[in-house]
Amino acid sequence: MAERALEYLSRRAEEVNGGLEILLPAETEPPQSLHRAMRYSVFAGGKRLRPALALAAGEALGGKAADILPLACAIEMIHTYSLIHDDLPAMDNDDLRRGRPTCHKAFGEAIAILAGDALLTLAFRVLASDALACGPARQLRVIREIAAAAGTVDALIGGQAVDIESEGKRVDASTLEYIHRSKTGALICAAVVAGGIAGGADDGQVDILRRFGQNIGLAFQIADDVLDVTATSEQLGKTAGKDQAALKATYPSLYGIAGSEARARALVDEAMTAMSGLGVDSAPLLEVARFIVARRS
Amino acid sequence: MAERALEYLSRRAEEVNGGLEILLPAETEPPQSLHRAMRYSVFAGGKRLRPALALAAGEALGGKAADILPLACAIEMIHTYSLIHDDLPAMDNDDLRRGRPTCHKAFGEAIAILAGDALLTLAFRVLASDALACGPARQLRVIREIAAAAGTVDALIGGQAVDIESEGKRVDASTLEYIHRSKTGALICAAVVAGGIAGGADDGQVDILRRFGQNIGLAFQIADDVLDVTATSEQLGKTAGKDQAALKATYPSLYGIAGSEARARALVDEAMTAMSGLGVDSAPLLEVARFIVARRS
Repeated sequence: MAERALEYLSRRAEEVNGGLEILLPAETEPPQSLHRAMRYSVFAGGKRLRPALALAAGEALGGKAADILPLACAIEMIHTYSLIHDDLPAMDNDDLRRGRPTCHKAFGEAIAILAGDALLTLAFRVLASDALACGPARQLRVIREIAAAAGTVDALIGGQAVDIESEGKRVDASTLEYIHRSKTGALICAAVVAGGIAGGADDGQVDILRRFGQNIGLAFQIADDVLDVTATSEQLGKTAGKDQAALKATYPSLYGIAGSEARARALVDEAMTAMSGLGVDSAPLLEVARFIVARRS
Repeated sequence: MAERALEYLSRRAEEVNGGLEILLPAETEPPQSLHRAMRYSVFAGGKRLRPALALAAGEALGGKAADILPLACAIEMIHTYSLIHDDLPAMDNDDLRRGRPTCHKAFGEAIAILAGDALLTLAFRVLASDALACGPARQLRVIREIAAAAGTVDALIGGQAVDIESEGKRVDASTLEYIHRSKTGALICAAVVAGGIAGGADDGQVDILRRFGQNIGLAFQIADDVLDVTATSEQLGKTAGKDQAALKATYPSLYGIAGSEARARALVDEAMTAMSGLGVDSAPLLEVARFIVARRS
């Protein structure tokens, strides 16, 4: 099962990398340092999990992959921008990301901040472009969905703010869940929901996809917390044990490893149950969801 | 004449402040530090020149102010985000902005970076919202216009990158014009063009508005360079003479003060000439344009 998911993800990653190659400014385009930094971080070997979810959801609802690909690429740009900014010295101060120096280590802080800004901005330009072929009304809904998930209220930036401010403090279970749902879960959920909208989902289907996305989004971050404890830096491509060293609130620190793994599995089961009402074949989407808790890096 | 422009700007600023008040998350909404930082920088007393240009252009083309107001507010959010990030220690390292401590001085670097990210993200959410009432196809064009101007190629982020990398170096006239047109001119131009599109401009009118916007955008930054030399810190609300101290490339350093003032006036004249073909009454737009080079702070 994990092999099938890996094969599926690897095929999708190729499409997404092809799309990103076209959408990102060339390294020869001035200002070159900025465009090199954007490409350095985007092509650092990510699994393209969020884009795969968007494509799988869009296809399940009857959309064509080529029409949804710009959405998938835009989501990966937003994910990458968030990693670049989170790694900055004023934030998580990380030197290593996906086995290589972080963007600010390679290009300096100023260019790293601007490269993050630029990826976020380009994502919205792509989302508003004609390439995302799902009709203007759906396209605007997609943009709203992504912008909300990347925002401050129960969303990406808000989660990062609370995460930063909680460092070194005792964090209760509900704050921890808020951080995980916001910082990681919201964009994963938006990938599924926006993919579905672009593919033609009706309101009922959007609700189902949202429940599915919320559950796998949280499950993903719990699995990430567990891997930070159980995997090596080499497997992760980033410094393992970093959460503990920074006294970060994590699921294992509150629930233990076995307890965290059980919670992640329960969330995926809940996600699967929600999807039974979707009324279309969503096998690849379910496979990727199962992979999220089974992955080893 | 300057009085009429000031009166017009003050009336528009009130509308824009009212819109921003509604669109920005309340300070009581968690994460509170983040939302406080966003509001701190947005409500620091800016002249709302870019929003005024968008509203004036939109109304000239037959749009209603209430329908275009979300666009005007989104442009101000993007302008504010760019100031927050430009002021960061890794960039221009400014302590003072509009007479108050800069965002990172007041809230710390991490929250300042996130507040900038959040304003940029919220801007696109607002641009895609139903509140911007100009029809889905025009709305998507507006988003593309703003995203392009806020981007890296002949645009805001690209201009800032070249500006940062040029510090302390001898910069030739064409690089200086590139920086000014990109860093400052692009968003000013986009305010005019997007306002016009939202108001119902046809393709020919969009071309005219673009020529007008490009000229006044560059004129604005030249006037800003001159004020950095001739005005006091108190008048500016930020450290005067800062460009010179940082060995920044400016128009006065290349062309002298009189030469720079003459160039700014010539650009405004060119802008006025372009507008004669617009075919609608655009008096307020022209007044704001003239004010841009006549202002004293």
